[in-house]
Amino acid sequence: MSARIWNVYLSGEIHSSWRQQITEGIRQAELPAELSGPVTDHEKSDRCGVAILGDEERPFWQDHKSAGINAIRTRTLIGAADVVVVRFGDKYRQWNAAFDAGYAVALGKPLITLHDEALTHALKEVDAAAAAVAQTPEQVVEILRYVVAGELP
Amino acid sequence: MSARIWNVYLSGEIHSSWRQQITEGIRQAELPAELSGPVTDHEKSDRCGVAILGDEERPFWQDHKSAGINAIRTRTLIGAADVVVVRFGDKYRQWNAAFDAGYAVALGKPLITLHDEALTHALKEVDAAAAAVAQTPEQVVEILRYVVAGELP
Amino acid sequence: MSARIWNVYLSGEIHSSWRQQITEGIRQAELPAELSGPVTDHEKSDRCGVAILGDEERPFWQDHKSAGINAIRTRTLIGAADVVVVRFGDKYRQWNAAFDAGYAVALGKPLITLHDEALTHALKEVDAAAAAVAQTPEQVVEILRYVVAGELP
Amino acid sequence: MSARIWNVYLSGEIHSSWRQQITEGIRQAELPAELSGPVTDHEKSDRCGVAILGDEERPFWQDHKSAGINAIRTRTLIGAADVVVVRFGDKYRQWNAAFDAGYAVALGKPLITLHDEALTHALKEVDAAAAAVAQTPEQVVEILRYVVAGELP
Amino acid sequence: MSARIWNVYLSGEIHSSWRQQITEGIRQAELPAELSGPVTDHEKSDRCGVAILGDEERPFWQDHKSAGINAIRTRTLIGAADVVVVRFGDKYRQWNAAFDAGYAVALGKPLITLHDEALTHALKEVDAAAAAVAQTPEQVVEILRYVVAGELP
Amino acid sequence: MSARIWNVYLSGEIHSSWRQQITEGIRQAELPAELSGPVTDHEKSDRCGVAILGDEERPFWQDHKSAGINAIRTRTLIGAADVVVVRFGDKYRQWNAAFDAGYAVALGKPLITLHDEALTHALKEVDAAAAAVAQTPEQVVEILRYVVAGELP
Amino acid sequence: MSARIWNVYLSGEIHSSWRQQITEGIRQAELPAELSGPVTDHEKSDRCGVAILGDEERPFWQDHKSAGINAIRTRTLIGAADVVVVRFGDKYRQWNAAFDAGYAVALGKPLITLHDEALTHALKEVDAAAAAVAQTPEQVVEILRYVVAGELP
Amino acid sequence: MSARIWNVYLSGEIHSSWRQQITEGIRQAELPAELSGPVTDHEKSDRCGVAILGDEERPFWQDHKSAGINAIRTRTLIGAADVVVVRFGDKYRQWNAAFDAGYAVALGKPLITLHDEALTHALKEVDAAAAAVAQTPEQVVEILRYVVAGELP
Repeated sequence: MSARIWNVYLSGEIHSSWRQQITEGIRQAELPAELSGPVTDHEKSDRCGVAILGDEERPFWQDHKSAGINAIRTRTLIGAADVVVVRFGDKYRQWNAAFDAGYAVALGKPLITLHDEALTHALKEVDAAAAAVAQTPEQVVEILRYVVAGELP
Repeated sequence: MSARIWNVYLSGEIHSSWRQQITEGIRQAELPAELSGPVTDHEKSDRCGVAILGDEERPFWQDHKSAGINAIRTRTLIGAADVVVVRFGDKYRQWNAAFDAGYAVALGKPLITLHDEALTHALKEVDAAAAAVAQTPEQVVEILRYVVAGELP
Repeated sequence: MSARIWNVYLSGEIHSSWRQQITEGIRQAELPAELSGPVTDHEKSDRCGVAILGDEERPFWQDHKSAGINAIRTRTLIGAADVVVVRFGDKYRQWNAAFDAGYAVALGKPLITLHDEALTHALKEVDAAAAAVAQTPEQVVEILRYVVAGELP
Repeated sequence: MSARIWNVYLSGEIHSSWRQQITEGIRQAELPAELSGPVTDHEKSDRCGVAILGDEERPFWQDHKSAGINAIRTRTLIGAADVVVVRFGDKYRQWNAAFDAGYAVALGKPLITLHDEALTHALKEVDAAAAAVAQTPEQVVEILRYVVAGELP
Repeated sequence: MSARIWNVYLSGEIHSSWRQQITEGIRQAELPAELSGPVTDHEKSDRCGVAILGDEERPFWQDHKSAGINAIRTRTLIGAADVVVVRFGDKYRQWNAAFDAGYAVALGKPLITLHDEALTHALKEVDAAAAAVAQTPEQVVEILRYVVAGELP
Repeated sequence: MSARIWNVYLSGEIHSSWRQQITEGIRQAELPAELSGPVTDHEKSDRCGVAILGDEERPFWQDHKSAGINAIRTRTLIGAADVVVVRFGDKYRQWNAAFDAGYAVALGKPLITLHDEALTHALKEVDAAAAAVAQTPEQVVEILRYVVAGELP
Repeated sequence: MSARIWNVYLSGEIHSSWRQQITEGIRQAELPAELSGPVTDHEKSDRCGVAILGDEERPFWQDHKSAGINAIRTRTLIGAADVVVVRFGDKYRQWNAAFDAGYAVALGKPLITLHDEALTHALKEVDAAAAAVAQTPEQVVEILRYVVAGELP
Repeated sequence: MSARIWNVYLSGEIHSSWRQQITEGIRQAELPAELSGPVTDHEKSDRCGVAILGDEERPFWQDHKSAGINAIRTRTLIGAADVVVVRFGDKYRQWNAAFDAGYAVALGKPLITLHDEALTHALKEVDAAAAAVAQTPEQVVEILRYVVAGELP
């Protein structure tokens, strides 16, 4: 009945096309949903701190400056989201993805995790806090389509 | 004075036409109110989990998957509601309706219950937490008309 | 700089024209403010409960039903307000006005009280919780004009 | 089962012995309850501001200073209370009592009001927000005895 | 490592001995846990309102008065609990149990449900919001033993 | 992806043109951001209390009245902000700027501080609570451009 | 009536004996109050970061490390306080004192400011947010004595 | 001044002796601190779900049951903690550690991270949210000693 816009935050892996697949799926399903996420240009994300606020000798403080600026974006958008989707890939440690998941859950946001079955045991605590555990971007789109529009495949 | 839109969530019984009656009453009264609610197609609601995320052998996990996905919708919309109406019918146990009522009250949402007089004793704790206890959909429409527009029958 | 709409809730006395004076002042100053308040038709406010939900023998429950329905409106609008103005007249006890003031303060809403100087001692606790204590509707309009638009008389 | 101590805040009228009656009733029933309340010495309560912080010419600021100091006590103790009892007498306007009631309700504290039947209509909004409406201190003691110890008269 | 006392609230069915079984299990396991719950004497719970505050002609208001007083106890103790256990039996509608579950979940309290397998489908939304779904009081004791003391059967 | 409007509150120094520089930078970058801030006309800000609500003999109460009215604006806009920027100049004590910073941080708002390097030691606690520490208005614009639009210089 | 312990946090100036005077006054008045505050050894407070976590070349990061560690203490103790007292001296900028005041107010803690009359205009926003404005440590003790024990000088 | 007990939650790696080292350091420094943490027996932690609630065929649901029970413990203790320490080792993905960090930060708990310098870049977002970043358990003890007792090495 409601014509509300759903805000969906897409956190996690930035080296595959899963965000585009979800975006395209949302577009095709014509769902009233706005997607948001972190800055996904890896290099920009890493160097924004020193690029704007000046260089640092130690890598720790280089990272610290960038992470502070990125957090302005990520925490604000997670705070404004209705649903948070977190994607875990099989490369990298992606601790920020798990951090976002914990942050979202503490705020009471419904969490959808997205990862291959091979990561099931490693992600058991995160998955147990999720409203749904998906393995493909298509499943995330289907969940959103059902949640927003009440439609099933 | 205010031209605000009121968000009203309609929780509970899905086997009678009470939602349509309230929707039609709101439309006729031309109230600035947006109604929302769960997915009311019983079968979809039951099988959304396995339909999207894959089958399960045990009925418990079939239900668990569906309930998780439904909760994304219901908790988000209750959280965004100004007023929550919960309808109890005389069939089924409808524990999810009572769960929604408790959830809404803990969030500080004004609650309107809707049920026959015969259920009065069984619902005494829920009714005592409600701002109003109605017996017909028409009464719910009248409450909303008064609350939103200041008009009485 | 901001073009935001300010929501102002006007609580309290319903037997004088102070709401109209503030409404007119806001209109003349062309402030981006939306005013809201309780249903100010005293009779409707008193009998909405029995008119909609059926009569009661005891006056206590007549009042109880009406007060519950009125609270749906007042608490929702106070919760959505940026600023709460509470007017105390010299007649009646107006405990609901003081209740609204306490309710608003606990929610962190800035409170403006409006009353004659003669009531100063009786209202000392309420006034001490207020951001401003006005004696005329014109002063309330001037406060809002300054707060919203940065203009002084 | 639980051996917890219940904190009960007694707000309102300071010119009758209702607090002593409740205190004595709690003592006789040997309930694990700690009672708290405002400073009930009217003169001290009125002049604490100027007595400590220096005199003011205008009565408004005399009251303002005292009310600020009293609020340190009352808001802290209401915030720490499990249950808030508010007594309305038939003299004085007692707007601070109604303010405390609204403040407590917004914090989610269960409210018990205590007043004569003659005040029913004037207190309808406050009573509708209360978990119980008592007419005598004995009833308040009985409510607490039942709530804390599960015993009825 | 920690010597903290865990507060566990036991909500729901009052016509079987499940609370005693959990209490005894906690005692035998020597867990630092304090159990609390509603007044479980059915008749007292039903008539506390009229017994203390005076009779009512209509059963609805009799129930209403009792439910208000019972809510002072139940909401306070749920609010103070670390863990909330809700038992659903096969008799009665037990809407208050489901209401308590929803209330607890909205407050962020970990929920343990306790019911026979036959109720699985009817309780799917409530179970999906639970951290654990038990079928026997012994399992609840084992969960608490593990959570509090890190011991398994 | 998101087309949301970002609300940015600019607190602190009112005697230099830093707000205009940020406003102009936001305009040139065509960012979807709305800027807000206190009334920056120093004289108006100081005398709004007495100008609207009547004069006071003691300067303390003159200031008190004005500060109360200014707080209606500043706290409301900080509460509605996504990001709070606080500028510290080298003149005046600017305790209200540091107060706003503490207020914003307690509300969970991301904080950007803006000040010369010479103030680094004096501002160490405030800077440590900030997501970013800038030295020029251009840097603040660049941070916002990156946060809102993902673009780097 | 209540025997509760009051937690009072003493923020601000560390170069005079005001904390000792308040501590001694509390002791003499035999008030059930526990005082807390930041580490007041200026040198320790400045170098704790590098002393524990290793040196930094840039003074900014030296300060940053220390401020982070100090914040663990100050925010935890302010969060646990019933009342927050903030002392402003006439030396140094003391932005951290004003930051603490803003932080405390946003958490809803009653604030008492303590400063000479000469600082009145500079502190007007902070004072307007305070429940009481004192000029001497003795006055703070008297406020606490009245608030805690109901006694006046 | 204060004699309060500090609650410190130790999250993360369970395959090295860092918890014992911190516990021993706290003991030697005689700090009034209580340490808590997850069940650190890896096998118990993995099989608690099926051991108590019955076996599952699919590993996903085995993990799910255990994770739910473990979450009762971890979320309750993090919620009750004053400070949260999260240790990242160089083995395993430890997404639950990062999840706990995000959860703690969203609750406003001061976070201390503990990891080797080699993990600095991978942990930049988590570290940026921390009040302190330590590399050895001894440093964590020193931070706590300073925070709790004001003593430096």
